[in-house]
Amino acid sequence: MAANGKTRLQQYIPVFDWGRSYDRDALTNDLVAAVIVTIMLIPQSLAYALLAGLPAQMGIYASIVPIILYAIFGTSRALAVGPVAVVSLMTAAAIGNIASPGSPEYIVAALTLAFLSGVFLLLLGVFRLGFLANFLSHPVIAGFITASGIIIAVSQLKHILGVEASGHNLLEIVTSILTHLGETNWITLIIGVFAIGFLFWVRKGLKPVLLKAGLGERMATIVAKSGPVAVVFVTTLVTWAFGLAGLGVQVVGEVPQGLPPLTLPSFSMDLWGDLIGAAILLSVIGFVESVSVAQTLAAKRRQRINPDQELIGLGAANLGAAFTGGYPVTGGFARSVVNFDAGAETPAAGAYTAVGLAIAALVLTPLVFFLPKATLAATIIVAVLSLVDFSIIGKAWTYSKADFAAVCATIAITLGMGVELGVTAGVVISIVIHLYRTSRPHMAIVGRVPGTEHFRNVRRHDVITSEKILTVRVDESLYFANAHFLEDKIYDMVAQNPNVEHVILMCPAVNDIDMSALESLEAINERLKATNVKFHLTEIKGPVMDRLKCSDFLSHLTGKVFLSQHLAVKELSSQ
Amino acid sequence: MAANGKTRLQQYIPVFDWGRSYDRDALTNDLVAAVIVTIMLIPQSLAYALLAGLPAQMGIYASIVPIILYAIFGTSRALAVGPVAVVSLMTAAAIGNIASPGSPEYIVAALTLAFLSGVFLLLLGVFRLGFLANFLSHPVIAGFITASGIIIAVSQLKHILGVEASGHNLLEIVTSILTHLGETNWITLIIGVFAIGFLFWVRKGLKPVLLKAGLGERMATIVAKSGPVAVVFVTTLVTWAFGLAGLGVQVVGEVPQGLPPLTLPSFSMDLWGDLIGAAILLSVIGFVESVSVAQTLAAKRRQRINPDQELIGLGAANLGAAFTGGYPVTGGFARSVVNFDAGAETPAAGAYTAVGLAIAALVLTPLVFFLPKATLAATIIVAVLSLVDFSIIGKAWTYSKADFAAVCATIAITLGMGVELGVTAGVVISIVIHLYRTSRPHMAIVGRVPGTEHFRNVRRHDVITSEKILTVRVDESLYFANAHFLEDKIYDMVAQNPNVEHVILMCPAVNDIDMSALESLEAINERLKATNVKFHLTEIKGPVMDRLKCSDFLSHLTGKVFLSQHLAVKELSSQ
Repeated sequence: MAANGKTRLQQYIPVFDWGRSYDRDALTNDLVAAVIVTIMLIPQSLAYALLAGLPAQMGIYASIVPIILYAIFGTSRALAVGPVAVVSLMTAAAIGNIASPGSPEYIVAALTLAFLSGVFLLLLGVFRLGFLANFLSHPVIAGFITASGIIIAVSQLKHILGVEASGHNLLEIVTSILTHLGETNWITLIIGVFAIGFLFWVRKGLKPVLLKAGLGERMATIVAKSGPVAVVFVTTLVTWAFGLAGLGVQVVGEVPQGLPPLTLPSFSMDLWGDLIGAAILLSVIGFVESVSVAQTLAAKRRQRINPDQELIGLGAANLGAAFTGGYPVTGGFARSVVNFDAGAETPAAGAYTAVGLAIAALVLTPLVFFLPKATLAATIIVAVLSLVDFSIIGKAWTYSKADFAAVCATIAITLGMGVELGVTAGVVISIVIHLYRTSRPHMAIVGRVPGTEHFRNVRRHDVITSEKILTVRVDESLYFANAHFLEDKIYDMVAQNPNVEHVILMCPAVNDIDMSALESLEAINERLKATNVKFHLTEIKGPVMDRLKCSDFLSHLTGKVFLSQHLAVKELSSQ
Repeated sequence: MAANGKTRLQQYIPVFDWGRSYDRDALTNDLVAAVIVTIMLIPQSLAYALLAGLPAQMGIYASIVPIILYAIFGTSRALAVGPVAVVSLMTAAAIGNIASPGSPEYIVAALTLAFLSGVFLLLLGVFRLGFLANFLSHPVIAGFITASGIIIAVSQLKHILGVEASGHNLLEIVTSILTHLGETNWITLIIGVFAIGFLFWVRKGLKPVLLKAGLGERMATIVAKSGPVAVVFVTTLVTWAFGLAGLGVQVVGEVPQGLPPLTLPSFSMDLWGDLIGAAILLSVIGFVESVSVAQTLAAKRRQRINPDQELIGLGAANLGAAFTGGYPVTGGFARSVVNFDAGAETPAAGAYTAVGLAIAALVLTPLVFFLPKATLAATIIVAVLSLVDFSIIGKAWTYSKADFAAVCATIAITLGMGVELGVTAGVVISIVIHLYRTSRPHMAIVGRVPGTEHFRNVRRHDVITSEKILTVRVDESLYFANAHFLEDKIYDMVAQNPNVEHVILMCPAVNDIDMSALESLEAINERLKATNVKFHLTEIKGPVMDRLKCSDFLSHLTGKVFLSQHLAVKELSSQ
């Protein structure tokens, strides 16, 4: 538990670990990173709150206390915690069924969702159950993120067009937008299209310009990342100067000035029952996204993160969000990369970012009154389109049809039936495919390669076999799902070789034999015995052999257990 | 498809296969077996109908047409299809929530359950999905059957006591019986206890007596198996002669005389929705029980059964039950063994049994008017207690704690929360345990055993290692559930060996690398590259290597793929 010379306290509350060696250099680096991330986070936080159907300030609140709590309990040095696109979408999907967006019940549901998510993550962390997230396979996650990105981008089109629309899956959203298409506000559309165009240009075109202008590589990258701030500034100014809000351009409007309020989630069991499933899904997705970002960044500096401790960090962050007017949060990709690139050295950078955002919440909120929602929507669209990546489909097709099926099903179900069903279906399908594969293992009759002690598949190689000895190699651990398959195959093979006197099961790739498989081996032994055929095992691994010795199988075995296949054939042939 | 020289017709309708070579000898053997099985089945069929909460005659009907259809479509030569204890209990549990036992709605629900079960089994068979039943592990089945046996035996106590009682789990049934204990009918209790005692004695004590009296082994076994008929005869006679029905002894009463009626299941979608889950569970349980009996018997004569064709046989039998006044059926253990022991050679024996039962339904039903329900309950209790076998718990404890957990959970949930939840929980738990196991595979750092080319675990053996080369052997196929674990472990190991220049992953037990694992390998490669460590693979299996060649992983790999670990270390050491 207390590995690498860390005390238990340092392990569970990592701030006591890195905090001891905090110095002036680290402070400077962290402060610089914090300023940059703060500037970037202001429009992003407002935008994601909008995506979740919540008042804009909740996006800011969700970035302040959670980021501090993560700094205390988390293990990544560069992760920036706060609202992210996919989790915001899942929040909207989960609470959209319970209350209408923006209503007081909706806000309480968002707080409660953060609370349940926090409790669930903490429990997973305390019981060291972080490995559960591994059941989300890479293709399923990639498919899910791509499909979510599409849904998010399409759902934001209503803000670009300035129309009302709703829906939780692609078809509903598209239909809703199409029926309202006639109500398009042309000024809003111009602002939106300009913002999208500018942001796309900033991402690709601005950096080369800055580099030519003589900025350093790192500085150019950071300035290019703050493109959203420029768009926010320009469109807000234009909207204010020309009175566009009076011409039907939707603006953010009044955002209360002040520090995050103290809030309480609901403790109604009914509401918990409605939200718990969504809270679990959203926590797992958020955790997977966060851990993969954290691992990527940690590896670049040869640092390590501890996934179970990450659960505690994220759990604390979500509880913080629940009690300070936020909504579910996790470690975001874009903000973390900026934080890392800007030179953040310790989690303290996150704390300074929180201070920056707190100042913004106190002072700057009146300035966003005239910020058009179309600008925020443009920010979201450009951000999430970078998540959309269909190349996974082609890769999966080439490499593995099973993974291809999983990724296609995940994308199709997420787009067609919503995010919650999509990710659940993805997990279930990949488990089913895995079980199906291992339930019909590769089995081959083998013979000796002339002049060697090697045994190979009779169908692929020119090998020496004996009519009396049938050797079957099975290339999989034996467990309940393939135990019957093994029996059937062996009976089939024996039925096709009526002169056989010895059946050898060669087990170099058997890493485990569970009780069902043991009973199948016993059944095989008994049935072969009834027909005067002896049953032998070869090349059983040490741990598997230890297990078999705990049962009475070996005492009933009609044949022997040989250390190697070669020894077995030598002895049995000479009889 | 048309293996072993069989035509497609012979494969799908096996009667065309064995029917061609049917001769006088086979006819004689089959007829003898049919007479014996018929005598045994009459009380058993009545008893199981009672257990399912259905009118007694439905037990007989469920044995007639289904047995004929199985004879046409099934592949087992000795399997006897009809009502069985566990499926009857599951029928009662499934339709007990929908209607009150014995009501017309209850009967229609039973027919519908048989119909849905038949359709489901046929679909599984046509699409060759019989392997799905393999996900019921041996310990889960054993635990489930034991727990079901207890529930059935306890539920029958009400008939022995002559009281009213109901409930679907152990607690409900026991509570219900206890509250009605004061209403015990003493004459019923005497009959019941006598019947139970006599039947137990018959099972163990009668055969030696018969053998001493000079009967042959086979004949003695068969006579001993017909003990239930004697009890039925004696108790019916006593009840009639002394007018016990007037003294409160519950009797079977009027059973309509006649052949099975034509009936229709319900086609109400609401009812289908209520029953479909139960139909699936019951079909799978029935199929597993039936196939294991059929396989055991077939093996004794070196015959083979085809599990997918068995699904079609059982599906047809259940459809037959649905349209001729029956209820869900499957291949029963007791009746099949009797059939086999009595010398049945072909499925025609089943057809003759059906004729025998049809005659019984036409002629003998008035004779069972005075048959006490306590006698039938005694028959059931004695039959199911042979299913109860707690030794599986001890075996599982010794052999594998994971299997132990699965069997205990199955028994506890079946007893405490009913059969449907019990079996579902058992399946889910065994899959979860399997996934958990394979999600944290055994991994070892290995070194060369001095003087050999073998590489072994550094912790277990005295081996030669190099500070620059770290070799990790992983003992499991790599897939999404363990991909992150692999990454974490390797990073941990590299972090603990800072002077490493080469990391070798040794894969002799890796039977598959799925796309998630491939991405993890790519991630490992990239991260090691970032720290100037080369990543190599050794002893990759042929099929796995074929797959890797479909990806661009090998072109990015910083190191090499070596055929053997020895070659790898030789080359890397010499650099």
